[in-house]
Amino acid sequence: MNKLGLARGEVHLRVSAILVLVLTTCLVAFDTQTKVVFLSIEKKATYKDLGALKILVYVTSAAAGYNFLQLCKHSTWPRKNFQGSYMCKAWISFLLDQMGAYMVFGANTAAVGAAMLAITGSESFQWIKVCDRFTRFCVQVGGALLCGYVASMLMAIVSTISAYNVFRMYSPKWLLRLKTTSM
Amino acid sequence: MNKLGLARGEVHLRVSAILVLVLTTCLVAFDTQTKVVFLSIEKKATYKDLGALKILVYVTSAAAGYNFLQLCKHSTWPRKNFQGSYMCKAWISFLLDQMGAYMVFGANTAAVGAAMLAITGSESFQWIKVCDRFTRFCVQVGGALLCGYVASMLMAIVSTISAYNVFRMYSPKWLLRLKTTSM
Repeated sequence: MNKLGLARGEVHLRVSAILVLVLTTCLVAFDTQTKVVFLSIEKKATYKDLGALKILVYVTSAAAGYNFLQLCKHSTWPRKNFQGSYMCKAWISFLLDQMGAYMVFGANTAAVGAAMLAITGSESFQWIKVCDRFTRFCVQVGGALLCGYVASMLMAIVSTISAYNVFRMYSPKWLLRLKTTSM
Repeated sequence: MNKLGLARGEVHLRVSAILVLVLTTCLVAFDTQTKVVFLSIEKKATYKDLGALKILVYVTSAAAGYNFLQLCKHSTWPRKNFQGSYMCKAWISFLLDQMGAYMVFGANTAAVGAAMLAITGSESFQWIKVCDRFTRFCVQVGGALLCGYVASMLMAIVSTISAYNVFRMYSPKWLLRLKTTSM
């Protein structure tokens, strides 16, 4: 396995991440359920009822877009010698990947925090359990959140590869000094 | 700035992280407010009313304990040559630090997701706004969540240092091959 193998692995991971992110977005955004609550009064549950789900849709779409841009860069960006321009791009990639992974993970976990309340309710706050009524809606959101965690995991692995791409260029003996010869 | 400087920086970061994590735990765990709701019926809001806040208290305590153990290791673990045992410990530190940073960030963000509902309520789910009644309680939780984000940031920086400690040992030319000479 050579350097090209790692680059190909990164591409596979990014493509998988994009697919899972798009799946998450679609599962949440197209999830609606209508129930007759009282006589003929209908109630419709959509992702817009929970702020956290709205944010999740925005963040996963943005993350899918970001990974797509990184893929485009991959196909046009030739590997250069490891000083100067390469380091700058590797650092930017690393920081953006880290931020992306944390953003997706954070948005997903915030949605889990809010969704748990829909399942359990809160007696002391007099919040009723919503999932008793909108069961199918809740199951679909649950599936989307699982997909979201798969996506976060993929993005965390990609950001580890980015960290490897940056830090292996540094000397093991001297702090933050680049290697001068190739080993 | 030499390698010792980085190690000292890591110690400072870990100590700060422990302090902020303990502060977060205390702010959430000792936050209570009692209000007369109807005639003489009293209601008490504590962190136990929201599952996400309970989880946050556990996770921040555990993270503070983990960072303390890492500090103990730092004072007893002499820096060795960079092959074998060092690599194993550096990899374990890196993976644990990554997991720790994601756990604290995730627990904090899940609590934000649930806490936002206490501020905004949800009209379609008939969830009332709790913060109108328990204002001081909510302000203290808000402060705790801010501290939680500071702690996550500190732990993310520590995990970046751990990544640096691992990956600079690898060759820049050959994939996942350790350097054989010191540069």
